[in-house]
Amino acid sequence: MTRQSHSDNLQLTLQQFNLPDANISLWPNWLTEPFSYNLQQQLVSQLSWAQDSIIMFGKPVKIPRQQVWMGDSHCRYRYSGTTFIPQPWHPAVRQLADNLSQFLQQPFNCVLLNLYADGQHHMGWHADNEPELGHDPVIASVSLGAARRFELKHRTQPWQLTLDLPSGSLLLMIGQCQRHWLHRLPKQSRINHCRLNLTFRYIEAVS
Amino acid sequence: MTRQSHSDNLQLTLQQFNLPDANISLWPNWLTEPFSYNLQQQLVSQLSWAQDSIIMFGKPVKIPRQQVWMGDSHCRYRYSGTTFIPQPWHPAVRQLADNLSQFLQQPFNCVLLNLYADGQHHMGWHADNEPELGHDPVIASVSLGAARRFELKHRTQPWQLTLDLPSGSLLLMIGQCQRHWLHRLPKQSRINHCRLNLTFRYIEAVS
Repeated sequence: MTRQSHSDNLQLTLQQFNLPDANISLWPNWLTEPFSYNLQQQLVSQLSWAQDSIIMFGKPVKIPRQQVWMGDSHCRYRYSGTTFIPQPWHPAVRQLADNLSQFLQQPFNCVLLNLYADGQHHMGWHADNEPELGHDPVIASVSLGAARRFELKHRTQPWQLTLDLPSGSLLLMIGQCQRHWLHRLPKQSRINHCRLNLTFRYIEAVS
Repeated sequence: MTRQSHSDNLQLTLQQFNLPDANISLWPNWLTEPFSYNLQQQLVSQLSWAQDSIIMFGKPVKIPRQQVWMGDSHCRYRYSGTTFIPQPWHPAVRQLADNLSQFLQQPFNCVLLNLYADGQHHMGWHADNEPELGHDPVIASVSLGAARRFELKHRTQPWQLTLDLPSGSLLLMIGQCQRHWLHRLPKQSRINHCRLNLTFRYIEAVS
């Protein structure tokens, strides 16, 4: 981790939630507040955000947030009936991916960025289980801006975990999490400012 | 564990939820269905259930459930401003306590039984942290009857875990759970039958 994102004396707290079939790790202050703030400003203004449409019940429906798909050129991503071609790396996001790979000792070569303008913007129950991601993918999620509620529920058991994801936090989902659990970002009507979320993934190049 | 409560070939599933400052274990089918049903019928009809009052804001308020405090004679229990003297052991509850002590390799010498007639009966946020229980008590909770939702929330962090407690299940709370987390049994208006819950504890005899 470079000094760009962490002061030398920042204590990195790790909170672990080990559930049946899922291991969730949360570093609430993985990035410093000033670094998170500056990165968010930069990405909000410099990226080509799109309120994409996905296919639901056979019809295109606009998603309740804006997004950017970014990464190495081979990282095509099929999501709810639409194939996304990656935008080239923004240097600051590339740097974050490199820091993350070093910190977690895991490769990351693509990232879905989601911009939630306020508490009306949300994402429904889903799993990051697209075939491109392979079996039991490692998903690393960095949050900037408004702290939002994050919910996980088991696919077949009546179990649910709720966390907040504060600005600068890193959430790591490993194990069989995507196979056995769903997650969502619910609406929170009282939240009136913006959250930017980067979920880093790895897609193997097809030779 | 005697054959009274378990068939020889019943697979005992264990689900573990290891959270920051708390270790939660759930055996969903610790008791068989027929055993759970018979035990519930027996205890509902044979115990002296009372809708006790506790002191809230200086006034006595009836609790939204019925209860019995049972155990060894020294096990007095002070709870929300009221001291409860234990009823002597009912033989079936004594047997369950012995089975539990053997299964978990932990002593238990008292138990709070709560009877929730339907989904209107509930228990608010609290921790089982009365001084009599000592530091970081082991709390073993056996459920009979209607499956009810059980919620845990951290005292200072925005984290919450929700489980269902089915009939015959055993829930074990260990570690610093009572120090750092609260739990409750919320109202569930759609539930129209009864749940009986036994939370086994250990209180040291004062010599």
